[in-house]
Amino acid sequence: MPEDDYLTELRREFHQYPEPGWREFWTTVRIVEELERIGADEIHVGPAAVDTDERLGVPDDEELDRWFEKAKSKTNRTDVLEQTEGGNTGVVAVVDRGDGPSVGLRADIDALPINESSDDGHVPASEGFRSTNEGFMHACGHDSHITFGLGTLKTVAESEFEGTFTVFFQPSEELLGGGKAMAAGPHIDDIDHLLGAHVGLDNPTGTVVAGLDGALALSRLDVTFEGESVHAGLEPNNGRNAVQALVAAIDNIYGIPRHEAGATRVNVGNVRADNATNVIADHATAQVEVRGESTELMEYMRDSVYRCLDSAAEMHECTVDTSVIGESIRRDSDEELVDLVSSIGNDIDDISSVVRRDTLGASEDVTYLMKAVQENGGQATFIGIGASNPTGHHTPTFDIDEESLPIGVSILSNTALELLS
Amino acid sequence: MPEDDYLTELRREFHQYPEPGWREFWTTVRIVEELERIGADEIHVGPAAVDTDERLGVPDDEELDRWFEKAKSKTNRTDVLEQTEGGNTGVVAVVDRGDGPSVGLRADIDALPINESSDDGHVPASEGFRSTNEGFMHACGHDSHITFGLGTLKTVAESEFEGTFTVFFQPSEELLGGGKAMAAGPHIDDIDHLLGAHVGLDNPTGTVVAGLDGALALSRLDVTFEGESVHAGLEPNNGRNAVQALVAAIDNIYGIPRHEAGATRVNVGNVRADNATNVIADHATAQVEVRGESTELMEYMRDSVYRCLDSAAEMHECTVDTSVIGESIRRDSDEELVDLVSSIGNDIDDISSVVRRDTLGASEDVTYLMKAVQENGGQATFIGIGASNPTGHHTPTFDIDEESLPIGVSILSNTALELLS
Amino acid sequence: MPEDDYLTELRREFHQYPEPGWREFWTTVRIVEELERIGADEIHVGPAAVDTDERLGVPDDEELDRWFEKAKSKTNRTDVLEQTEGGNTGVVAVVDRGDGPSVGLRADIDALPINESSDDGHVPASEGFRSTNEGFMHACGHDSHITFGLGTLKTVAESEFEGTFTVFFQPSEELLGGGKAMAAGPHIDDIDHLLGAHVGLDNPTGTVVAGLDGALALSRLDVTFEGESVHAGLEPNNGRNAVQALVAAIDNIYGIPRHEAGATRVNVGNVRADNATNVIADHATAQVEVRGESTELMEYMRDSVYRCLDSAAEMHECTVDTSVIGESIRRDSDEELVDLVSSIGNDIDDISSVVRRDTLGASEDVTYLMKAVQENGGQATFIGIGASNPTGHHTPTFDIDEESLPIGVSILSNTALELLS
Amino acid sequence: MPEDDYLTELRREFHQYPEPGWREFWTTVRIVEELERIGADEIHVGPAAVDTDERLGVPDDEELDRWFEKAKSKTNRTDVLEQTEGGNTGVVAVVDRGDGPSVGLRADIDALPINESSDDGHVPASEGFRSTNEGFMHACGHDSHITFGLGTLKTVAESEFEGTFTVFFQPSEELLGGGKAMAAGPHIDDIDHLLGAHVGLDNPTGTVVAGLDGALALSRLDVTFEGESVHAGLEPNNGRNAVQALVAAIDNIYGIPRHEAGATRVNVGNVRADNATNVIADHATAQVEVRGESTELMEYMRDSVYRCLDSAAEMHECTVDTSVIGESIRRDSDEELVDLVSSIGNDIDDISSVVRRDTLGASEDVTYLMKAVQENGGQATFIGIGASNPTGHHTPTFDIDEESLPIGVSILSNTALELLS
Repeated sequence: MPEDDYLTELRREFHQYPEPGWREFWTTVRIVEELERIGADEIHVGPAAVDTDERLGVPDDEELDRWFEKAKSKTNRTDVLEQTEGGNTGVVAVVDRGDGPSVGLRADIDALPINESSDDGHVPASEGFRSTNEGFMHACGHDSHITFGLGTLKTVAESEFEGTFTVFFQPSEELLGGGKAMAAGPHIDDIDHLLGAHVGLDNPTGTVVAGLDGALALSRLDVTFEGESVHAGLEPNNGRNAVQALVAAIDNIYGIPRHEAGATRVNVGNVRADNATNVIADHATAQVEVRGESTELMEYMRDSVYRCLDSAAEMHECTVDTSVIGESIRRDSDEELVDLVSSIGNDIDDISSVVRRDTLGASEDVTYLMKAVQENGGQATFIGIGASNPTGHHTPTFDIDEESLPIGVSILSNTALELLS
Repeated sequence: MPEDDYLTELRREFHQYPEPGWREFWTTVRIVEELERIGADEIHVGPAAVDTDERLGVPDDEELDRWFEKAKSKTNRTDVLEQTEGGNTGVVAVVDRGDGPSVGLRADIDALPINESSDDGHVPASEGFRSTNEGFMHACGHDSHITFGLGTLKTVAESEFEGTFTVFFQPSEELLGGGKAMAAGPHIDDIDHLLGAHVGLDNPTGTVVAGLDGALALSRLDVTFEGESVHAGLEPNNGRNAVQALVAAIDNIYGIPRHEAGATRVNVGNVRADNATNVIADHATAQVEVRGESTELMEYMRDSVYRCLDSAAEMHECTVDTSVIGESIRRDSDEELVDLVSSIGNDIDDISSVVRRDTLGASEDVTYLMKAVQENGGQATFIGIGASNPTGHHTPTFDIDEESLPIGVSILSNTALELLS
Repeated sequence: MPEDDYLTELRREFHQYPEPGWREFWTTVRIVEELERIGADEIHVGPAAVDTDERLGVPDDEELDRWFEKAKSKTNRTDVLEQTEGGNTGVVAVVDRGDGPSVGLRADIDALPINESSDDGHVPASEGFRSTNEGFMHACGHDSHITFGLGTLKTVAESEFEGTFTVFFQPSEELLGGGKAMAAGPHIDDIDHLLGAHVGLDNPTGTVVAGLDGALALSRLDVTFEGESVHAGLEPNNGRNAVQALVAAIDNIYGIPRHEAGATRVNVGNVRADNATNVIADHATAQVEVRGESTELMEYMRDSVYRCLDSAAEMHECTVDTSVIGESIRRDSDEELVDLVSSIGNDIDDISSVVRRDTLGASEDVTYLMKAVQENGGQATFIGIGASNPTGHHTPTFDIDEESLPIGVSILSNTALELLS
Repeated sequence: MPEDDYLTELRREFHQYPEPGWREFWTTVRIVEELERIGADEIHVGPAAVDTDERLGVPDDEELDRWFEKAKSKTNRTDVLEQTEGGNTGVVAVVDRGDGPSVGLRADIDALPINESSDDGHVPASEGFRSTNEGFMHACGHDSHITFGLGTLKTVAESEFEGTFTVFFQPSEELLGGGKAMAAGPHIDDIDHLLGAHVGLDNPTGTVVAGLDGALALSRLDVTFEGESVHAGLEPNNGRNAVQALVAAIDNIYGIPRHEAGATRVNVGNVRADNATNVIADHATAQVEVRGESTELMEYMRDSVYRCLDSAAEMHECTVDTSVIGESIRRDSDEELVDLVSSIGNDIDDISSVVRRDTLGASEDVTYLMKAVQENGGQATFIGIGASNPTGHHTPTFDIDEESLPIGVSILSNTALELLS
C-alpha cells in the first residue's frame, strides 16, 4: 500500500468512530494496535501516560461506562481496553535509539459533540466514512492529528538516528482537560524539542505555519450553589436562596475590573435552577469561563471569579462548590524552532507557502506540554498544517483535504529527524 | 347501591386517572357520562363552559396531544372527547326548574405532577385505586371535589325546588389557569349564590369551615429573554447577552419595594440558559411569581416585575417576552352566606364542629368566580370540608378519609336547597 | 403666678433654645435649675443618669464642643454644665417619700435640625419665642415634654404619698440614640409603673390616648467601605473599588426577603463617595435603616444587612465598618395601665375624649424603658396628650395649643398619684 | 533682556497666578497684553477664538463670577476681560505674512486644583513665585506651554517667511473641555501643519519626542437621577428611589462587555445621594468616565453607559439627566511631521536625544485639533519637550527645569519656520 493511502485509510477509520474527551476508549486501543504494528519500542497507556489526578472535566461514571461498553463491543483487545477504564485514555509511544537528543510530537485524539452532516456534498458522507457515533464528530481534525502522530512515528522509526522520538497521543483537548494531565505525566521531562501540529485553521493545503501563537489562556469552572428550599409564599425568610446567590455572583463577575496588562474575557453559560416558582431555590448551577492574553491575566480573572462566588454564597447564606473543568495557559513558539521549521518547509516541494508565525484564535492545551519543555530548558513550537476546508472548524460539514496528510507527516518527520541528527 | 358507596366509588375512579391542568380529557368525558346518568338538564363542555381565550398556562400542542391520545384510548365517547380537543376541558351542568333563585357550586377537577406512593400504608395503594398515570396524582383532593359536584347535583336533582342549580367543573386550578377562564364563560352571570368547597386543609372529618378567606392573590409569569449569540472570547462586544439581562432583572425584581398596605411576595424559579460558556447567551428563561395580600398588592408587584423585565432587556439590548401562565385574585366569603352555612352545619349530625371563618394559606382561583358573582350583586362563600389526612396536601401519601364525602354532599346540598327554597 | 402660666413660660423658654441630640447642654442645666427650685430630692446628671457606653449616634468632638461652648456662654452654672461635657446630657430627678410604690415618667428633651418659620402666622414668631438657635427647632414638642416632666414633678412633690416618683429627662430621642442608654442607666430598675407621654400626634386638645402602640422597631447603621485608590485608566486591576462594594451591598440589601411574621422596611440614604472619576474609589459611605413590626423582625433585617455588607466588602477586597447610630425596639402599652389612665382621663373635666389605644406611626425609643420595666415585672404605658396643631410634626410651622400643657400635667400627675396611693 | 530670561520671567509670572478650566480670565488678558507687545497681526479672544456652544464642563455662574471678580481686581484691561465673561477664555493669535503655508501651534493654559507645596526644597516656593491662588497650581506645566506659545510666536514674528503662523492658547485642557470647542472654532480650518507641545512627561531636559501618541480616548459624564421622595417606613411603595436607580446603573456599567478591538476602561466617581435614611432618595448623582484605545472604543463604552443609565432610570421609575463634561478622542502624530521634527531636533545643540515616538499615558484633547487638521488633509504632531522634574505631574511639588524653555521654543520655532519656508 502506498504511503499516502495508508495515511488516508487511517484518518478515515478514526473519522468513523469519534469519541469525546476522556471517552477515547476505542481510539486508544486502535492507536496501540497500530503502534504495535509499526514497532514502537515503548507503548504507555492511560495511567502510564498521563497523571490521572490532574485530569480536568472527567465525566461521571455513568457516562464513562456507556462509552466504555460501546468500545468493548468493538474490539477484542480487552487487555489494552482495561487499562483505560474510568476515563484513563491516551497513549505515549517511544522510538528509542539510545543516547542522543529527545524529540516529542503531540497529537490530540478526542472528538466533538456535533452531529455530522449526511449531505451528499459532504465527502465523509458520500465516500462512506461518516461518523458512526451519532451526535459526535471529528469536526476539528483530530483524526488527522492521530494520523500525523502514527505516520510520523512510522517514518521516524524507519529512519536512522540516535536519540529518542516520543509521540504524545493526548486525550481531551476540546475540553481543555488533557493537556495539563499529560504534561504532569512521566514522559515530558525527557523532551528537548517538542512539536505540536494542527490541521486546517483556514490555511489552504500547501501552506505551513512554523509557529502558532497567542491562544488566550482559559479557565472554565463548574459552579453549584446550595441553599435551602421553603415555600416562597409562606415563609420566604426561612429559605436560603440559591438563585439570589447565583445572580449576585454573575452580576459581579461581569464587573471584574479590566486589567492594565492586556485583554481579558469572562462569560457565564449553562445557567440553571429547576425550582418551582413557589419554592425558594435550594440549588442553582452555572459554568463560568475566563480568558486572558497571558496565563497571569487568566489567573487574575479566575481568582476574582472565586471571590465573587464565595462572597455571593455568604451573602445569601448558601454554600458554593466550584471545580475547574478545563484550563489552558499561554505559551508561544520558540524562535529557533520556528526558524528550523521554516527552513525545512521551504525545502519540501508540496509546501508552496511557509508562514513564520500566525495567531491562534482558540485556546489550546498543548501549551502545558510546551511550558514543561520550555521550563526544562528545551524548545517547542506549534505548527499549522494547511488543509483546504469546505467549511469552518466545529461545523457539521467540516472536512479536510487529505492531500494535507502526507505534507504534515513530511514537515513533522523531517523536522524531527533534523533535530535528531 | 347505598349513597355513600356511590360517592366512594366515584372518588376512587377519578383518583385512579389523574390528569393535570388543561389535560383533563378523560375526566371531562367521565363527568359528562355521569351527568347524563343523573339526568342534568344542561351539559356544557369545553368552549361552551369556559372562555377559551382567557385560559392561562395552556401547555403546547405536543403535550396536549399526548394526553388527548391517552384519553382516546380509554373511552368510546369520542363525541364528547372531540369537544375538548386543544385543551378545552371542563364542564358546566345545570338542573333547571324554571324561575327562582340561581345557585352555583364550583368543583375543580385537575391533578398534580406528583408520583403517588405505592407503600402498603397508603390506602389508595393497598386498596388498589392508586394512580395509573405514573407521575401524576390527585394529591390535593380534586377527586373528592368532582365527587362533591356530582353527588350534590344528584341530591339536588332528586329534590323539589324552583330555580336553577349549576355545577362548574373547573379545569386547571393547580396552575391557577382555569378560574379566570370559567368566570369569563357564559354561565356565571346567572348565579345569585355561589358555593365553593375544598376538602381537607388540616381540618379533621366532622369539621366544616363556613368561609375560607385570605388566599394571597398571585400572578405567575413565563419570561424569555432573547439576545444575540457570539463567541465570548473573540467578539464579546458583538453579543447581546440574555444572561446579563436576566440577571439584571432578577436582581432588581427581588428589590421591589415593600408595600405599606400589606404583605407581598416575589420569587423566581425555573431559571435556565443553555448556552455553552464560550458563547454569549442568546436565550434565557425563568418564571417569576408574585403575591399580594390583596389583588391590588399582587398587581403592584406584577407591574413592577414587568418594568424590571422590560428595562433589563433594554439595558442589554435584548428583547423579552412575558406571558401570564397563572393568576388568582383575593376575594373573601360573604358574611350572610357564612351565617347560613354555619347554621345548616350545626343541624347536620355528622358535623361535630363548625368553624365560621378560617384562613386559606395557598392561592385559589375560585376567587374569580366569587368576584363575578359578588360584582353582580350576588354572594359567595368558599367552604372547607374537614377530612382527616394522613399527610399534607401535595405529598405522595396524601389521602382523605372517605367519611368526609357524604358530609360534604350534605352541607353543600342542604345549603343549596335552602337557598333555592 | 398661676400654675398654667408657669407651664407656658417654661415651654416657651425651652422652645427658644432648642438643642439637638447629645448636645442638650443648656437644656440639661436649665432642667436642673428648675428641679432645684421645685425641690427634687435627688438630681442625677449625665453619667449619673445614663449609661454613657450605651449612647448611640454621639456626634464627633468638634460638633459637641461647638454646642458646649454655646451653652457655656448662656449659663453661669458651670458646676452642672461640666458634668455634661462630651455629650453626657440628660437628667434623672427623684421625689422620695420612703417605702411604697415606685412610679416613673419619661420626658424627652432634644430638638430637630429644622429651620423654624418666621412667618407672622406662626405663633412662636409673632409672640417672640421663636428659636434662637438658627436651623434648629423644637418641632416635635419636646419642649412640652420637658414641661410635662417638670410640671408633673412639681405637682407630685406638692402632694402627699408614700413611695418614689422619678422623672427621666431623656436626651437624643430623635436620633433614637438616648432611650437605650437611659434604660441601661442605674434608675430604671426601681420603677414599678412607667408613664411616657407625647404631645400632639394629630389629636386635638382635650383628647387623651391611654396607650400608644405599634411603633416599628428600627435600626440605623453608619456604613464605611474602605478600598484602595489607583488610577482608573492606568491600572484598574490594582484598585479595590469601594463604590463597587457599596453598590453590591445596596443592591442586595434591597433584596432581603420579606418575612412571614409581618412588615419589614429597608432604606439607604446619605450615599457618598468623593473619588475623582479617574480614580478608583477607596472610600464610600452610606446609612442603612431597617424597620420591623416587631423587635425580632427589625433584628432579622439588621442581621441580613450586616451579611450583605460584609460579603460585598469581601467580594471587592474592601473592608467595611458599621456602627449602630440609632435603634428602637417594639413595645406596647400594658392593658392594666391603659385601663387606669382611661378611667382617670374620664374624670378630668378638660379631657373631652379618651381613646383607649392608638397606633404610633413613627419609631420611639421610650420602648427601651418600657421593656426594662416590663421585664422587671412592672407595667408601662405611652400616653398621647392631644394638642391642636396648625401643621404636622417635623415642619417649620409646628406648634402646639398651650391649653394642652395643664391637661397633660393633670392626667400624668393624677395617674402617678393614683399609683402611689 | 536676554531671550532666556524673558521666557523664565513669563513662565514664573503665569506660575504665580494659576486659574482652572474656563476660569483663565487673568491668564487670557495677560496673554493678550504680551501678544500686543510682541506685535501679533490678529488677536482673537473668547467667542472669537472658540465655539462657545461646544465648551464642555463649564462651571456654574457663581463659580465663574468668583474667578472673574478675582481677575478684575488684578488687571486694568477690562476691555479684554469683558470679552471673556461667562467662561469665554482662550486666545488665538496670528502672524500673517500673506499667501503661503499655514502653520499652527497649540498651547494649553489652564491649571489644576492642587495645593502647591511651600517647602523650601520646592523652587517656586524658595524663589518666590509659588501660586498665589491657594489650592490651585500649574502642576502640569501649562505655564511653560503658554511660554512656549508666546516665545515661539515672538521668534517667528521676528523672522522672515511667507504664510501665516497661528497660536491656539486653549483653555480647559485638564477638564478635557476646551479642545473640542477650539477645534470647532473659526481658525483651525486654515491650518496645514499643526504642532502641539507638552513639557516634562518624565523625559529629562535635552530630550525631545517628535511624536507623542496613544492617549486613550475619554468621555466623562455628569449623571443625575431624579425620583420621588416619601417616608421609607410609612409608604415605601410610593417612592421612586433614585438610589436604587443609580445602583442598578453602576452595577451594570461595570459589566459592559470587554471589546475585541482593544482596551477599554470604565469608572464611577463622585457618587452622592443626600437623602435622610428614613426617606426614599429623590435625587442621586455620580460621574462616569469611560476610555478606549480608539475613539470608536470610547464611543462604544459611552453609548453602553447611556443605555445602562436610561434603562436603570426606567426600571425604578426615575428620570436621568446626563451631560458630557469632558471628552477627548484618539489621534496619533503624522509620520512626515515626526520625521521633520526628528531631523530638526538632531540639528539643535541643546537637544541631546531625539525620540521618534513615545506613548502618552494620560488623555489629551489636543487630539480634536489634530483631527480637524488631518481631516482637512493637513498634518499634525504632538511634541514632547523634556524637562527634568523633581516629582511627577499633578503633584504639589511638580516643577520643571527652566532650561527646557528655550529648547522648546527652538524646536517649535525652527520646525514652524522650516514648514513656512
